[in-house]
Amino acid sequence: MSSNLNSHRKHNFSAGPCTLPLSVLEQAQQEFVDYQGTGMSLIEMSHRGKHFDAVANEAMALSMEIFQVPDDFSVLFLQGGAMLQFSMVPMNLLSNGQKGAYVNSGAWADGAITDAKEYGDIYTAWDGAENNYTRMPATAELEMQDNTRYLHITTNETIGGIRFPEWPQVDVPLIGDMSSEYMARPLPWGKFDLVYGGAQKNLGPAGMTVVFIRKSILANTNKNIGRYLRYDIHESNKSMFNTPPVFPIYMFGKVLKWMKKQGGLAAMETLAAEKSAILYHAIDDSDGYYHCPVDVACRSQMNIVFRLPSEQLEQKFLSESAQANFINLKGHRSVGGCRASIYNALPKSSVDALAEFMATFRNDNARDNG
Amino acid sequence: MSSNLNSHRKHNFSAGPCTLPLSVLEQAQQEFVDYQGTGMSLIEMSHRGKHFDAVANEAMALSMEIFQVPDDFSVLFLQGGAMLQFSMVPMNLLSNGQKGAYVNSGAWADGAITDAKEYGDIYTAWDGAENNYTRMPATAELEMQDNTRYLHITTNETIGGIRFPEWPQVDVPLIGDMSSEYMARPLPWGKFDLVYGGAQKNLGPAGMTVVFIRKSILANTNKNIGRYLRYDIHESNKSMFNTPPVFPIYMFGKVLKWMKKQGGLAAMETLAAEKSAILYHAIDDSDGYYHCPVDVACRSQMNIVFRLPSEQLEQKFLSESAQANFINLKGHRSVGGCRASIYNALPKSSVDALAEFMATFRNDNARDNG
Repeated sequence: MSSNLNSHRKHNFSAGPCTLPLSVLEQAQQEFVDYQGTGMSLIEMSHRGKHFDAVANEAMALSMEIFQVPDDFSVLFLQGGAMLQFSMVPMNLLSNGQKGAYVNSGAWADGAITDAKEYGDIYTAWDGAENNYTRMPATAELEMQDNTRYLHITTNETIGGIRFPEWPQVDVPLIGDMSSEYMARPLPWGKFDLVYGGAQKNLGPAGMTVVFIRKSILANTNKNIGRYLRYDIHESNKSMFNTPPVFPIYMFGKVLKWMKKQGGLAAMETLAAEKSAILYHAIDDSDGYYHCPVDVACRSQMNIVFRLPSEQLEQKFLSESAQANFINLKGHRSVGGCRASIYNALPKSSVDALAEFMATFRNDNARDNG
Repeated sequence: MSSNLNSHRKHNFSAGPCTLPLSVLEQAQQEFVDYQGTGMSLIEMSHRGKHFDAVANEAMALSMEIFQVPDDFSVLFLQGGAMLQFSMVPMNLLSNGQKGAYVNSGAWADGAITDAKEYGDIYTAWDGAENNYTRMPATAELEMQDNTRYLHITTNETIGGIRFPEWPQVDVPLIGDMSSEYMARPLPWGKFDLVYGGAQKNLGPAGMTVVFIRKSILANTNKNIGRYLRYDIHESNKSMFNTPPVFPIYMFGKVLKWMKKQGGLAAMETLAAEKSAILYHAIDDSDGYYHCPVDVACRSQMNIVFRLPSEQLEQKFLSESAQANFINLKGHRSVGGCRASIYNALPKSSVDALAEFMATFRNDNARDNG
């Protein structure tokens, strides 16, 4: 079944939700109606029963292991996307007099700032507006203020296609929105108090937010907020204070096993470097036919944005690529152009095929640029 | 496949997540890896693409149709469970000087009150503590105060096994947590401003909250909160402001189609009345061997709680019923005893079988009560 199906599979460059490993999908399908001979689907089971308990515990342990998270952190499985974290972070972490510093690196960072302003004294330590959000700041560019509780960064901007090549060296803990490069590169955990992200890019289906939080900060988080919004309550209840998102947790566990089988975080990082290099090479070697507007040092290894010589050619490129089974290559509506999102589960063969398509398209359409 | 599998299926009386229609599970399994010949799973698709858009739109339209919701309401597909609504309701609805009135009918109502107190001037209009939460209040018992924005009720208490037999007649709008009897009885929509509930009982898998909200109140909801927490933003974006819980929405749509095929809301209501009557009959006709602690008029048609003559017999009952394929009959740990949750998708045949098992158990174990 796999090989037939595989040849029928789309090259899916969606920015998320996105491609999942085929073997994970097939396994989930196989046990979907009758989970391990129990006479029930896993999604019909009490979240407090032994079967789901085993699934959740395994996903928690594997996520800590594969992402190389030290023991002084806990992992939380929440809901509401990275978007709800935009509120929960300042709600929980900022006490009176403390400020939250934010790097405004593009659309998602801007969203984090917008929401945070409802819950505390927030300032922008650096703003990428003047270069149209095409690069990340160096540490020397950050304008930090006194009484800053944390520096919030969006480690990879899904829309702008940029990432931090090096981590900021500041005196306050970092908070990272890592949604679009989650578990695709190692983190210097000593610098972070909290890392969060939606699952629907590298980790599994939509409907789940994965948070890693430093345990020692939980004693000082704000307790005067609704219980679903409190990190300490989720942590002390092992993310089972209320009914968790059962199916995404189950799928996350399967994706983690797949990652481990591929070689874990190091393999994901190597794969991301290789896959992104193929596409950046296709862009850079095109005599300017394709153009990536991003600062070379800050190029994302997950979201490769590029332009063609004209919007007409971009339309043609999107239309013909879709016919050739390459889908979701359209850039975000706010910036236009093209974008190939090449998350962990996207096979390298899809990237090779796209690079080849790009070369062919350029050959066939180069004269239109005259 | 169905018939073999059916005979292997557990009688699943879980309080949630719980039984889903077998036909829905089988259909989802069939199209899980390759959705309608697209070369992708639905959970791999962009939530802004045409396939998921059709799925979400259909689920929205069907939920309004089947639940007989008037056009001046909108349906929202959110995350965070009923638990996050405990915060969102007062956060969005209470302005300065306005109070929120709550009926404390048991564990879940108490949770709603706890969270609401972080966000406004909250009072308990009636408290069931003195009768150990075994009944709901009559309208005459409600102590309403001036400047009350809404009266919050938990229409059915999952743990206590009670429901409102009649809706409160008050001068302020009702807010209803309907999680454990969602779409199992009709609502007098004119009385409500907002109804919410987790999907994982009557509507589908865990990881989704369904909210029906009166459109006219959205202009006056609080705008100084994080965007994920704002009803108006979810409404104006058709629940697509951020990535929605794709898989639960898809499954909800399938459950809705199943409901429609069964005869819609009227059929669900009739079925609930019939199934619950079978179990209450088994209890009432047992010469006191089984005992339901709940006021007869307020008996839930979804969560049937009952006790046996002793805790030893309850243990034996739970153990032997589990061996006979009846699972999750244990009462909530906070109250003990037994509980049969018989949500919409639990077949009547499972209820018949349980009633029969109860009679047999009583015959076999009656002497232990001497």
